[in-house]
Amino acid sequence: MKKRKIILDCDPGHDDAVAILLASSYEEIDLCALTIESGNQALEKTSRNALNLVQYLSLDVPVAKGEAKPMVRDAQICPEIHGESGLDGYEFPPLYKKCVKQDAVTLLKEMLTKDEYTIVATGPLTNIGVLLKKYPEVKNNITEIVLMGGSIGFGNVTPAAEFNIFCDPEAADIVFTSGIKVTMIGLDVTRKILITNKINEEIKNINNKVSALFYPLMKVFIENQKKVFGFDGAPLHDPATIVYLVKPEIFKTKFMNVTIDVSKGPSYGRTNCDQFDYLKLKKNAFVVLDVDVDAYFEEIKNCIKKY
Amino acid sequence: MKKRKIILDCDPGHDDAVAILLASSYEEIDLCALTIESGNQALEKTSRNALNLVQYLSLDVPVAKGEAKPMVRDAQICPEIHGESGLDGYEFPPLYKKCVKQDAVTLLKEMLTKDEYTIVATGPLTNIGVLLKKYPEVKNNITEIVLMGGSIGFGNVTPAAEFNIFCDPEAADIVFTSGIKVTMIGLDVTRKILITNKINEEIKNINNKVSALFYPLMKVFIENQKKVFGFDGAPLHDPATIVYLVKPEIFKTKFMNVTIDVSKGPSYGRTNCDQFDYLKLKKNAFVVLDVDVDAYFEEIKNCIKKY
Amino acid sequence: MKKRKIILDCDPGHDDAVAILLASSYEEIDLCALTIESGNQALEKTSRNALNLVQYLSLDVPVAKGEAKPMVRDAQICPEIHGESGLDGYEFPPLYKKCVKQDAVTLLKEMLTKDEYTIVATGPLTNIGVLLKKYPEVKNNITEIVLMGGSIGFGNVTPAAEFNIFCDPEAADIVFTSGIKVTMIGLDVTRKILITNKINEEIKNINNKVSALFYPLMKVFIENQKKVFGFDGAPLHDPATIVYLVKPEIFKTKFMNVTIDVSKGPSYGRTNCDQFDYLKLKKNAFVVLDVDVDAYFEEIKNCIKKY
Amino acid sequence: MKKRKIILDCDPGHDDAVAILLASSYEEIDLCALTIESGNQALEKTSRNALNLVQYLSLDVPVAKGEAKPMVRDAQICPEIHGESGLDGYEFPPLYKKCVKQDAVTLLKEMLTKDEYTIVATGPLTNIGVLLKKYPEVKNNITEIVLMGGSIGFGNVTPAAEFNIFCDPEAADIVFTSGIKVTMIGLDVTRKILITNKINEEIKNINNKVSALFYPLMKVFIENQKKVFGFDGAPLHDPATIVYLVKPEIFKTKFMNVTIDVSKGPSYGRTNCDQFDYLKLKKNAFVVLDVDVDAYFEEIKNCIKKY
Repeated sequence: MKKRKIILDCDPGHDDAVAILLASSYEEIDLCALTIESGNQALEKTSRNALNLVQYLSLDVPVAKGEAKPMVRDAQICPEIHGESGLDGYEFPPLYKKCVKQDAVTLLKEMLTKDEYTIVATGPLTNIGVLLKKYPEVKNNITEIVLMGGSIGFGNVTPAAEFNIFCDPEAADIVFTSGIKVTMIGLDVTRKILITNKINEEIKNINNKVSALFYPLMKVFIENQKKVFGFDGAPLHDPATIVYLVKPEIFKTKFMNVTIDVSKGPSYGRTNCDQFDYLKLKKNAFVVLDVDVDAYFEEIKNCIKKY
Repeated sequence: MKKRKIILDCDPGHDDAVAILLASSYEEIDLCALTIESGNQALEKTSRNALNLVQYLSLDVPVAKGEAKPMVRDAQICPEIHGESGLDGYEFPPLYKKCVKQDAVTLLKEMLTKDEYTIVATGPLTNIGVLLKKYPEVKNNITEIVLMGGSIGFGNVTPAAEFNIFCDPEAADIVFTSGIKVTMIGLDVTRKILITNKINEEIKNINNKVSALFYPLMKVFIENQKKVFGFDGAPLHDPATIVYLVKPEIFKTKFMNVTIDVSKGPSYGRTNCDQFDYLKLKKNAFVVLDVDVDAYFEEIKNCIKKY
Repeated sequence: MKKRKIILDCDPGHDDAVAILLASSYEEIDLCALTIESGNQALEKTSRNALNLVQYLSLDVPVAKGEAKPMVRDAQICPEIHGESGLDGYEFPPLYKKCVKQDAVTLLKEMLTKDEYTIVATGPLTNIGVLLKKYPEVKNNITEIVLMGGSIGFGNVTPAAEFNIFCDPEAADIVFTSGIKVTMIGLDVTRKILITNKINEEIKNINNKVSALFYPLMKVFIENQKKVFGFDGAPLHDPATIVYLVKPEIFKTKFMNVTIDVSKGPSYGRTNCDQFDYLKLKKNAFVVLDVDVDAYFEEIKNCIKKY
Repeated sequence: MKKRKIILDCDPGHDDAVAILLASSYEEIDLCALTIESGNQALEKTSRNALNLVQYLSLDVPVAKGEAKPMVRDAQICPEIHGESGLDGYEFPPLYKKCVKQDAVTLLKEMLTKDEYTIVATGPLTNIGVLLKKYPEVKNNITEIVLMGGSIGFGNVTPAAEFNIFCDPEAADIVFTSGIKVTMIGLDVTRKILITNKINEEIKNINNKVSALFYPLMKVFIENQKKVFGFDGAPLHDPATIVYLVKPEIFKTKFMNVTIDVSKGPSYGRTNCDQFDYLKLKKNAFVVLDVDVDAYFEEIKNCIKKY
């Protein structure tokens, strides 16, 4: 079997953490690098979280620190969901693993100059935006960008915008207008894949090294989402990108125009997804519309059992 | 019983037509004037449609022609849904009824100088926007503005915006920031109240003068919605405002901030409804979130039976 | 000699007052109506000032009260230059003259339906913007719009915008994109035609009924400009429109594209005058670039001497 | 005498070339690095031009290639003024000099981590914008940023905007809001310092290695400006920054608020310079208002004579 080579661009974050452990569990995926940016927390913290996860899972994957700030606007972080560390809920052992010397954009450029990769993006897309602006010639070696971000309908930081895209609308605009194959998994889907205490308990019972990490992280994640949004069950956004790569058949997807609102008005950062082709604009993204929720959590459980 | 005095500001339009016939059927409502604007079709046509409806229903209600164009942008019309006449599907008899001499804004000002009214708005809000800009002193005599327009989630002319608000975002901005009590019924609700051929046939069987008008109009409306959007069943938007006035208990409503996007970017005309109070802005509108669909169509049937 | 029929749309204002007295002194001009709007002061005050001037000068000219607010944004006024009354400096006798019954837009529409006129505009253009939006059919009877407003270079209320256009950018946008012949006299010119105490004293010495009005008004105008901007000499903006009509040969003019900034960014209300045709856009306005200052004030003196 | 250490961030370009030769001639200045970006021509060409100049002048100064594209918008170049090579008019000998290994932003960061520098910027500011976004900690070691760009009045690529700022408004916004001491020399000044054929002939007669380079470059520069703008004499923009550093007494400067228009409307890229403090915003830049033209060209001649 030919494994799919991916670079995971992320800002861990609880759901990014699950994306990492899924990516490293699938036989179908060859996780080749982690490139880190600010988002769920400041860059120093998201980088440290990435290193902790890689060390904990004994992965042989380079971790590169990337952009500390969005392309234009000021950095936003989300401590009310992810806590002070950006990954509250688990005390990792002393950290030996280090970031590679290159920054994320340089590592991406070097890797993409030599080989083809799928980029999976679960953060604000700043690293990718800077990469494509600075080294547009690497486009041809990006097989696809599968990203968690955006919303067809309602946002989660403003009524118009989802957190990842809101953090760096200009980077998102570069990605969606790049001509690269883009697949977007937004809130319309991830609001359905709610991890509940019940599911978390089931995963706890898997009772291995990974479930021992997963359980307390998700406990905090579920509690914080409850505090902030008042819902039972927390949308397990980011791992959907990885599950999508391996099991696209459990998702429903449509090709359409997606235009990023970079107007700086009240809808700044909105992903205008023209699912009914009102505006007859050039189609540029595969937008995921639906997911088989049970199958999704079945995948997550199966991945954790593999460890 | 004290009847609620309303002025219906509209752009008929198939669903406006149903709003008119509902308003004139309810004992609880005293329909005091129709003020017309461009929207579903050009002003001349929407005015003619209003007069035809008033004459057909033998209503003693003044009809005033209003604004032919939105406050700032160019006029949009919607012939693909409402046809060349704006009310395709029924051949009205010769028209004798005439518009009053005053234009809509003058009539509104005169009436609101003397008495208090609820304004029900089922068009692009241009008349109301011009009124409030020109004669802000009438605000105190507007009990409430109940309007059909906007969307919490996805739009119906762009991915961001609903038709009425998209037609005249600046007028909507004036209404939502006026300090008047505003109740908004948007696509999130009206997409659930789909009139189907089955419901239309049931209404046909009521077999009176009004069902004889209702049936062929809705037949065309359902067909056109099917052609344009591909759905079975057409959202019967506008009458929801009238039903809401009499039966608020079948709707679920929440008080929140609504900010109109007047930025002229890709989300121009969006109603950003902050239902979870992300932005801690001043709350200014009651937004209808849900409706009991069966009860809604029951009301419509009951109203038609009264004739 | 065929007199040029003009309607003067204004917001008096000290320099509007001079425009009125010039217009009524020239044989070449037939001043047919004054239409008033808010601007230098609130509408009630600018209307009262217009009536006082018409009564003082014994003019048989209808005065119509117009728009109290700009088309979209909130009203701006300028009491620091024009004082509490909008025309501080002269105590007019008791006022008998009244505004006509019609509002300004209705009067404009009625007049322009029957005959052709040049519109001279020395205020924020709201009346004209509303007129053109509501009754676009009158365009053909507008020979030309000669307006004071805008700036090629630096503004006078923001670094980008001049007061009149800043007050109502959306109205200006309608005027400049109307297809009507537009001549714009902006700050680049009016900053050169500075009335000084010396010139004012010379006019005082004319020693007639009009110089008796002119002198104390200009005294206050010069003092206030000195207080606010710190300059000796006050730009006598508005009368330039009238002098231009009769003596175009003392002005230098160029045809070019003028685009109004309606973006609501920091340059909101700017008149982008593409004098070197950088952008190859459709030319839509004659922009006055220069004036013979001595000849200008000679005209003003000659006009006052005629009374 | 303590020399002022500068890093020159530029996009050569004819007038950048003169800035370089001035900077290297002054005893008061220690030219420590050239950081290059796209602007007058594409990055490859501006970098080559910088290397050619450094080799021709036998300077021992590192040249670092920087950003090939503005922070957000697409790259603009200006071949109609600077020609196909970006420095048309002189055939340089074979090029041996090479760019350093680091990119411009990395070199800037390294240098500014160890020592304090004044940054002189004669291009679109992209390198500086990226630097400040990525490594805000270096701010404290930037003594001042002296830049050529912007306009108080009229632009030179749009009626609102000057070329350098128009190329990368977002980078300019970062610079002007950075809190670093910023001195801006814009078109209002540089339009006065016109190099004419007469001045160029005088410099030719200096008759040394540098005048032999200067003369043919300026000949082309003057010809192209004549072709494009129709003026006699070409504004010798960029060297004003260097002359300002050594002879500030020949310039007139005022401290004021400068707000960059990043609204993407028709005034995108405008530097709104609030010279009369209309808006009472925080002052953030020293804007040069005037220059002693004769003294300016005297300086240029004297510098060239030193070689």
